[in-house]
Amino acid sequence: MSRTLKEIAALVSGDVAGNADAVITGVAGIEDAHEGDITFIANPKYLPFLSRTRASAVIVGRGMEAEAGTALLRVDNPSLAFTKVVSFILPEDIRHPSGVHKAAVVSAAASLGKNTGIGACAVIEDGARIGDNAVIYPNCFIGRNASIGSNTIVYSNVSIRENVRIGSNVIIHAGSVIGSDGFGFVTVDGIHHKIPQVGTVIIEDDVEIGANCTIDRARFDKTVIGKGTKLDNLVHIAHNVITGRNCLIVAQVGVSGSTTIGNNVILAGQVGVVGHVTIGDNTIVMAKSGISKNVPENSVLYGVPAQPVNEAKKLHAYVNGLPRMHQTIKDLKARIEQLEKKR
Amino acid sequence: MSRTLKEIAALVSGDVAGNADAVITGVAGIEDAHEGDITFIANPKYLPFLSRTRASAVIVGRGMEAEAGTALLRVDNPSLAFTKVVSFILPEDIRHPSGVHKAAVVSAAASLGKNTGIGACAVIEDGARIGDNAVIYPNCFIGRNASIGSNTIVYSNVSIRENVRIGSNVIIHAGSVIGSDGFGFVTVDGIHHKIPQVGTVIIEDDVEIGANCTIDRARFDKTVIGKGTKLDNLVHIAHNVITGRNCLIVAQVGVSGSTTIGNNVILAGQVGVVGHVTIGDNTIVMAKSGISKNVPENSVLYGVPAQPVNEAKKLHAYVNGLPRMHQTIKDLKARIEQLEKKR
Amino acid sequence: MSRTLKEIAALVSGDVAGNADAVITGVAGIEDAHEGDITFIANPKYLPFLSRTRASAVIVGRGMEAEAGTALLRVDNPSLAFTKVVSFILPEDIRHPSGVHKAAVVSAAASLGKNTGIGACAVIEDGARIGDNAVIYPNCFIGRNASIGSNTIVYSNVSIRENVRIGSNVIIHAGSVIGSDGFGFVTVDGIHHKIPQVGTVIIEDDVEIGANCTIDRARFDKTVIGKGTKLDNLVHIAHNVITGRNCLIVAQVGVSGSTTIGNNVILAGQVGVVGHVTIGDNTIVMAKSGISKNVPENSVLYGVPAQPVNEAKKLHAYVNGLPRMHQTIKDLKARIEQLEKKR
Repeated sequence: MSRTLKEIAALVSGDVAGNADAVITGVAGIEDAHEGDITFIANPKYLPFLSRTRASAVIVGRGMEAEAGTALLRVDNPSLAFTKVVSFILPEDIRHPSGVHKAAVVSAAASLGKNTGIGACAVIEDGARIGDNAVIYPNCFIGRNASIGSNTIVYSNVSIRENVRIGSNVIIHAGSVIGSDGFGFVTVDGIHHKIPQVGTVIIEDDVEIGANCTIDRARFDKTVIGKGTKLDNLVHIAHNVITGRNCLIVAQVGVSGSTTIGNNVILAGQVGVVGHVTIGDNTIVMAKSGISKNVPENSVLYGVPAQPVNEAKKLHAYVNGLPRMHQTIKDLKARIEQLEKKR
Repeated sequence: MSRTLKEIAALVSGDVAGNADAVITGVAGIEDAHEGDITFIANPKYLPFLSRTRASAVIVGRGMEAEAGTALLRVDNPSLAFTKVVSFILPEDIRHPSGVHKAAVVSAAASLGKNTGIGACAVIEDGARIGDNAVIYPNCFIGRNASIGSNTIVYSNVSIRENVRIGSNVIIHAGSVIGSDGFGFVTVDGIHHKIPQVGTVIIEDDVEIGANCTIDRARFDKTVIGKGTKLDNLVHIAHNVITGRNCLIVAQVGVSGSTTIGNNVILAGQVGVVGHVTIGDNTIVMAKSGISKNVPENSVLYGVPAQPVNEAKKLHAYVNGLPRMHQTIKDLKARIEQLEKKR
Repeated sequence: MSRTLKEIAALVSGDVAGNADAVITGVAGIEDAHEGDITFIANPKYLPFLSRTRASAVIVGRGMEAEAGTALLRVDNPSLAFTKVVSFILPEDIRHPSGVHKAAVVSAAASLGKNTGIGACAVIEDGARIGDNAVIYPNCFIGRNASIGSNTIVYSNVSIRENVRIGSNVIIHAGSVIGSDGFGFVTVDGIHHKIPQVGTVIIEDDVEIGANCTIDRARFDKTVIGKGTKLDNLVHIAHNVITGRNCLIVAQVGVSGSTTIGNNVILAGQVGVVGHVTIGDNTIVMAKSGISKNVPENSVLYGVPAQPVNEAKKLHAYVNGLPRMHQTIKDLKARIEQLEKKR
């Protein structure tokens, strides 16, 4: 779609420096942009590209001092503005399933809201409830008495087991499994006896779950993903885990059973969290770290086992200094030998 | 379902201290329990909750000294007893597919045992054999000549490729893939040529496989998961791996090709094991560790690369002590300088 | 199938030492081989098995000095030769879907090439294009306007979203997801706003993708897997990642957004790569390492954060030497005390 820079500025309450009549026809990253594209800079790392981008306009923060060969659009939050501009210029090329496909397999004892889209070979069991405007892509499985809130999108090949409750405005990407049995056994004489997992999973509103994630049902009671929390791909959430609101859980993180995570927590890629601990609000755990005990709120942690990041970095520097420390000790030893001789 | 504590005590051969006529209507964790619930304590960490739980009864070990405001049920193994009680009070709310759904796609050249349940859009290929009482959930794929033992449950969206053999009383959670090609290439002049993976996978009886796991078929010969071994979610087992009996392989573990794992081995979450090594019986590898060589039996290992856990913890303490060691060296240096001056 | 060793030698341009008329009926690993089998040794670790293998013939390198009780077949590259022999003796027991299954759900607005195989309950949306001889297994989802090149094999339960482009001679194993949304949010006042992911994914020719992998579509522009690159199982590739040609990306690796990977790069199992960095050609990253910054070409890296492997190993040895260093310091301290006293 074609828009002038002036129209875009109105959309995002921004101020144009340069040609406000420039015609914008596409969006792109600053390195790849061509004439007609609009781009943005949120990370100062990309500032050096500003002088040589071929974009017709660049969205920048209000405070950013920049010399550009192109029009600038100054806004409060460049990333957020760009998000709006993307949808404005390039409406998402998505056409979700609409209506109930004739090859969908919907139980007569399931209930569908208004205006749902149910794809081919989606299987919806007895007692399942699909909310208004919700979309279930092909080849999904929605178990008995599971419920899906309004406006929720469930991509293809997702499995949602019996009794699981999914809120509204949720997105679940392809291949994820919600409500599989927790990993619980009692071992007697070396044989592992399965502990029945009779609880459920509750996914609150506005959650996004990446592709091929696994979220286990509780032993009893519930596993919860709090409102507004976002999971990346291949994340594992064990039974009875409770996550707070607005967390970011990055790809390949694993959280063990019965752990409680506060609000606004960030777990970076490949982090592991042991079971039965509590992570306080606003905590940030850096990539590949391992959490082995309770974490107070507002922590920033790194390492295996995780330590406060400054502590971890200091120790890392000491380890890098070990060859020098070894040499110092050798030198001191020689000086002591000298002293001993001369005594 | 409603039961008296006396009835429950009879089920688990336990002794009641307190009101044996208490009516139990639910199960819950000790923190969440309400009046009418029964709960349990296996981990002493939860003992402090005993005095303030609202549960009507608590299952505890026979030796446990405890003051409680509620009835106690003393048993030999609280976890195992609780497992039985859960099924007694809260029969699992599961109704597996039964019969062959009219939207299932079962080859005329496949064979189904007695009393199987085959879900909608499950696809079962020529020559596949499904054992008595086995359940195949919707949207599964069972490849040509694969066999599934009796009483085995295969949840939705599972892929089981050609010739794979699954034992009896096995549970495979949703989204798992059994029998994908091993990752094997011969590199000539920078180009990776695929090595045909013509072997198979054998899953022995009583195995449980978590959600979205991947178990590769052997290059030739077989990949084996031994009887009674349990895999958590998102576990990767490479080609020609042989695991022993009654192992516990926790979420996001990866085991590389041709490695042999003994009996009763525990690999905790996110552990990685290199290829072509042997891990002895009864070994425990702690979370996030990396195994890079053969491991004798009865080992307890930690770290990357993994070391005996006591060794690893000792070294970890030394690393944490580096700032102090650095200061000590500085002090010694100053004292040497003093000595040198005074000489 | 039954072949003489002479026939096999002709196939792989090898020289027989021993009975060239030996009849070969199977292939096996050197430890498991029986009479009638052919096996091979590429890794010298397996040389000790040569004297006691029951195989009727063993493929070895031309330079390999070996005493064997069996026929040897000397070739330039034993692994590559064995690959050919496997297909010669044991044609893969695979019979891909052929034709369009009557339970497949193919849009009238999709286009199928010549000789395609479309399995039962595969769902192919409007505008999708499937190339000649391509195979789509049961329960796959091929989104609107996605394209699949000729001779490509897509195993069961794979999800390929709208507009994704897959090349020719590609193999995608079961359960993988190509084209899920990248993990991108703008956070304002603690709420994470989704950034539309309007780009796509391009999988070039000759790529192999393991089971249950996830490859996210770009925010805008494209995520690319370069020609001849091979991914193992459970690999995560984030949005806007560009991988070069002929890389090997081993199981459970995660690559964060907008990172660029050169040609012939090897990322071993469970490696993590941060976003927005560049990894040079021919780099090898050892298992479980974490890449946190740009990497020059021809690097060999290890550790978290990754360092040149020799550096990392040296530091590791120093850490293992800490108890001894501690003792040395203690001894020096005692000697200084002696000196101070005697002064």
